[in-house]
Amino acid sequence: MADTTNPLISDRDVDFLLYEVLGVERLCALPYFADHSRETFTLFLDSVRRFARDVLFPTYRPVDEEPAKFVDGRIKAHPVLHKVVPRMVDLGVLSATRPVDVGGQQMPMTVSALANAYLMAANLSASGYLWLTTGAAHLIEAFGDDWVKQEFMARMYSGEYTGTMALTEPGAGSSLADVRTKATPTADGHYLIEGAKIFISGGDHDMADNVVHMTLARIEGAPAGIKGVSLFAVPRMRPEGDALVFNDVNTAGAVHKIGWRGLPSLVLNYGESGDCRGWLVGEPHKGISYMFQMMNEARIMVGFNGASTAAVAYQESLNYARTRPQGRPLRAKDPTTAQVPIIEHADVRRMLLRQKAIVEGAFSLLATTSMYADLAAHEEDEAGRKRAFLLVDLLTPVAKSFPAEWGFESNTLAVQIHGGYGYTSEYLPEAWMRDQKLNSIHEGTTGIQSMDLLGRKVVAAQGAAMQALKEEVQAACDRARSAGVDEAWSKQLEAAFDGIASLTMTLAGIGMQGEPERMMRHSVHYLQLFSIFVVGWQWLLQAAVSAEARAAGKGDDAFYAGKLKAAQYWFATEVPRIAQLAALVRSEDDSYDSMQDDWF
Amino acid sequence: MADTTNPLISDRDVDFLLYEVLGVERLCALPYFADHSRETFTLFLDSVRRFARDVLFPTYRPVDEEPAKFVDGRIKAHPVLHKVVPRMVDLGVLSATRPVDVGGQQMPMTVSALANAYLMAANLSASGYLWLTTGAAHLIEAFGDDWVKQEFMARMYSGEYTGTMALTEPGAGSSLADVRTKATPTADGHYLIEGAKIFISGGDHDMADNVVHMTLARIEGAPAGIKGVSLFAVPRMRPEGDALVFNDVNTAGAVHKIGWRGLPSLVLNYGESGDCRGWLVGEPHKGISYMFQMMNEARIMVGFNGASTAAVAYQESLNYARTRPQGRPLRAKDPTTAQVPIIEHADVRRMLLRQKAIVEGAFSLLATTSMYADLAAHEEDEAGRKRAFLLVDLLTPVAKSFPAEWGFESNTLAVQIHGGYGYTSEYLPEAWMRDQKLNSIHEGTTGIQSMDLLGRKVVAAQGAAMQALKEEVQAACDRARSAGVDEAWSKQLEAAFDGIASLTMTLAGIGMQGEPERMMRHSVHYLQLFSIFVVGWQWLLQAAVSAEARAAGKGDDAFYAGKLKAAQYWFATEVPRIAQLAALVRSEDDSYDSMQDDWF
Repeated sequence: MADTTNPLISDRDVDFLLYEVLGVERLCALPYFADHSRETFTLFLDSVRRFARDVLFPTYRPVDEEPAKFVDGRIKAHPVLHKVVPRMVDLGVLSATRPVDVGGQQMPMTVSALANAYLMAANLSASGYLWLTTGAAHLIEAFGDDWVKQEFMARMYSGEYTGTMALTEPGAGSSLADVRTKATPTADGHYLIEGAKIFISGGDHDMADNVVHMTLARIEGAPAGIKGVSLFAVPRMRPEGDALVFNDVNTAGAVHKIGWRGLPSLVLNYGESGDCRGWLVGEPHKGISYMFQMMNEARIMVGFNGASTAAVAYQESLNYARTRPQGRPLRAKDPTTAQVPIIEHADVRRMLLRQKAIVEGAFSLLATTSMYADLAAHEEDEAGRKRAFLLVDLLTPVAKSFPAEWGFESNTLAVQIHGGYGYTSEYLPEAWMRDQKLNSIHEGTTGIQSMDLLGRKVVAAQGAAMQALKEEVQAACDRARSAGVDEAWSKQLEAAFDGIASLTMTLAGIGMQGEPERMMRHSVHYLQLFSIFVVGWQWLLQAAVSAEARAAGKGDDAFYAGKLKAAQYWFATEVPRIAQLAALVRSEDDSYDSMQDDWF
Repeated sequence: MADTTNPLISDRDVDFLLYEVLGVERLCALPYFADHSRETFTLFLDSVRRFARDVLFPTYRPVDEEPAKFVDGRIKAHPVLHKVVPRMVDLGVLSATRPVDVGGQQMPMTVSALANAYLMAANLSASGYLWLTTGAAHLIEAFGDDWVKQEFMARMYSGEYTGTMALTEPGAGSSLADVRTKATPTADGHYLIEGAKIFISGGDHDMADNVVHMTLARIEGAPAGIKGVSLFAVPRMRPEGDALVFNDVNTAGAVHKIGWRGLPSLVLNYGESGDCRGWLVGEPHKGISYMFQMMNEARIMVGFNGASTAAVAYQESLNYARTRPQGRPLRAKDPTTAQVPIIEHADVRRMLLRQKAIVEGAFSLLATTSMYADLAAHEEDEAGRKRAFLLVDLLTPVAKSFPAEWGFESNTLAVQIHGGYGYTSEYLPEAWMRDQKLNSIHEGTTGIQSMDLLGRKVVAAQGAAMQALKEEVQAACDRARSAGVDEAWSKQLEAAFDGIASLTMTLAGIGMQGEPERMMRHSVHYLQLFSIFVVGWQWLLQAAVSAEARAAGKGDDAFYAGKLKAAQYWFATEVPRIAQLAALVRSEDDSYDSMQDDWF
């Protein structure tokens, strides 16, 4: 009973973000993007959208209902994935953003990621094979030598091989310092790898010739901790002459994930027969730093996963609310009148508008962050690149965690709007709720994002990142004022920034006094208020653009009116929470910090 | 990989609520409870606790993994339920609170419900058969004639038959005014029933001789709306002479619920062969009012479901956090030191203390509400009964929705604490998260609870309910002050009450001006702030009792210290949200109310 007309994501909103809010075409003035134009963006977006809706979305339910199978030591992907994954590759999404000389299209990440979002919304598991592969190949592109690039990267970008990130071990989940997989150098240039990894998404399947695991391991004699971890390309099958031979990467089993059920999560054993070869990527002991350099991109992708999963559920509940008759308005006392669609009940509209504010706020933040990423990589002057990079770096923990946390609430509201039906697997919202939950856990939990934000990002470069953010926020406030947007919203945002800046100084001071635990005690609350603020900035920006469009008589009034209402909602319900959360952080309340184990 | 030592619910906490906070023994001074004492309570509680842990909890996973089957028009319950459900009946929980003359034990609901909570925490589905049966039988006890009592009620209280509530229809979920099932009188005294019901929990199974459906239907010619709905006892098998013959109640299918998977949720068709007989319970057209009179009890039970489901997950994540080593303290720079259990990370303790505050706050509210229910039914003087009833009535929407909404967040935190493992069905937290979600939907959605609270309860009896609450809260504040509890908490609570009282007056005024939509616009936000307040009152009360115990040198310091920390947490993080939410309600922000369909 899925809504087969579900658009997954609003095209109108994506176009609004790209062309009206961000003016993404201006990127085409940069040499890297010079072959592009709004026309090429549109062609690309349209082909992906069509595929996502017509081909990929119908595969979602069958793949969720029948997870990948583990048979005789190998993973068998769902039959329907065998059909659609190669067609996804044909869309060109794998290497869209990469340089022409590695087979790419030099497309802005801003465009590519928003296109990918449709694939994520259509079938999160299926899309996972692709962006994991892109991420793995990109690591090699950035740090690998020519042989590794030729053997692995090129084949990943072309879709011949897929890739994984093999970081996590049973005893080292969030703690990468504790990676214990061993790498022993050989005289032949490669290393022998031995160890176990867990939760390796897409770690095996039967849809491509090979899987290349970007594997963190410790070279014998390496220093303890994160400074002794190296990065290796470890294929399941290794090239020997013209043949591919088994490389002793063994699938020991699959964990039963509650969502993303088409993308198996595996336990891998390396070197059970002592013959697992890995090729060092970059220099020894620098694996974690390479991972960190790719981490923003990976985390922003997780943000897109979250926003997309919330978006498709929002669209589904919107359609349901428009078509499900139930009850009557409060004033209607005559029970013989027809029941009304539930969208006519204010509390249902509350839930829908909350979903809209979360979904479209998340996409706005993600698109903006992606735009900074494009500028950070391809802006012509170094100062511009550096400033954009600081913004990407600062916004990434929010872009990763906001869609995961608020998105989960949004997915939960989609279930609630469906009432009793929402509690059944006959309807899809519960499946998307399951899918969403992973996003607060993988690629750094929300707790880790909060420590990254407060412990690193807001204090980065002597405050230069926060200064850049302040300028961006101020520009949005100024624009909103000129456009005649409710003055109170700009004031709220400016006051919030001042409060956050002052709070950050106080916390940084505590850290510099040598009390990191005290500084970080409320890091999650800090992340929450920072997220509300950042998304508030995005809503003000959208409101400004919408007000300008209305003033200019552009038509499409319903769309812009909805944007202004969602902004109003955010400023009325969420932004006031910033001051309350800031007071909590400032209070240094020690309730949980001072809680002893045996007091629970 | 479940924690087999999971205590489900803390015995120490339950005893604290019963004997230290509420002094439940004082009920034994009332005639109805005169045969009871702390000893009989302890015997009862201990037998239920033992059963819940040793027998029932081990059935949870198998029942969740293999839902009830629909075969040849009948439902087959999981084999293990055939073994344990009769043993649950033997515990005496079905009629524990009912009068001796109907086979009961005249146990206070306060004690009985807390005992039942262990069964719910152990296996929510299995326990569902019991409290649904009790609820159905209680309806007949209150409103049925002698024949119906003898034929159905007695057999339900004894466990020979089970019972259901058959309210919901495909076209009438939350809108009971739209019930269309027909009842046609016959000359033989019974009615012929024809129609369809949906989401009937436990509507068929093979564990008892019969299922009695307490069915809402409309007698031909009845007025439209809720004033034309009558209540019938409609058994699956009807008595004819000494035999039971099929009563034309047909199981048309099962919906696939995402949780509570041992308790099937069915579509029932009545009278496909024109031979479904129902017996009127009470007077014609009064079915809804009878349901309303039983609704508090049913909703408080749903609150217990929610608190119990959050409790067992809290205990599981607490054990996991104590035993899972991962990472090191922020200060520890030496990666060769051993990893520490994750409970040593402040953010993990934050999540655990939040769970504790929610779970124990919910149980405290539920126990307090149950105590008022006992007094409302059995207090000797009428004024006392009336006052207690007003409190039950006022607190019920919170006691129902707080455990569902905050409890869902608590269940989500249990998943989060388990990290990647929490996202797998190898661990149980995800199953409890699924179970919990139903509690915001059934027995009146959270939106409906909010309208009940604001539209009926807080304005009831010319403010007498709120006045009674004020007195209770004031007593807690006074007691906290005497006990030396942080003075600021009492002040926060008093100020919050004044704010809520004033806000309520304002909203009631808007309603009386004939603008119910405007009055109710922010009913869910009102419910949220009211819930935080009411649970804050419960935490202040618990803090007062704990401070008294410490001052009296009662020992058990760790337990009382934990209580005071949880109270501190609630006053630091949640209570300040009341003012922010009150300002939102007062602002009458119209964002979603004014949102048009085509603006989404």
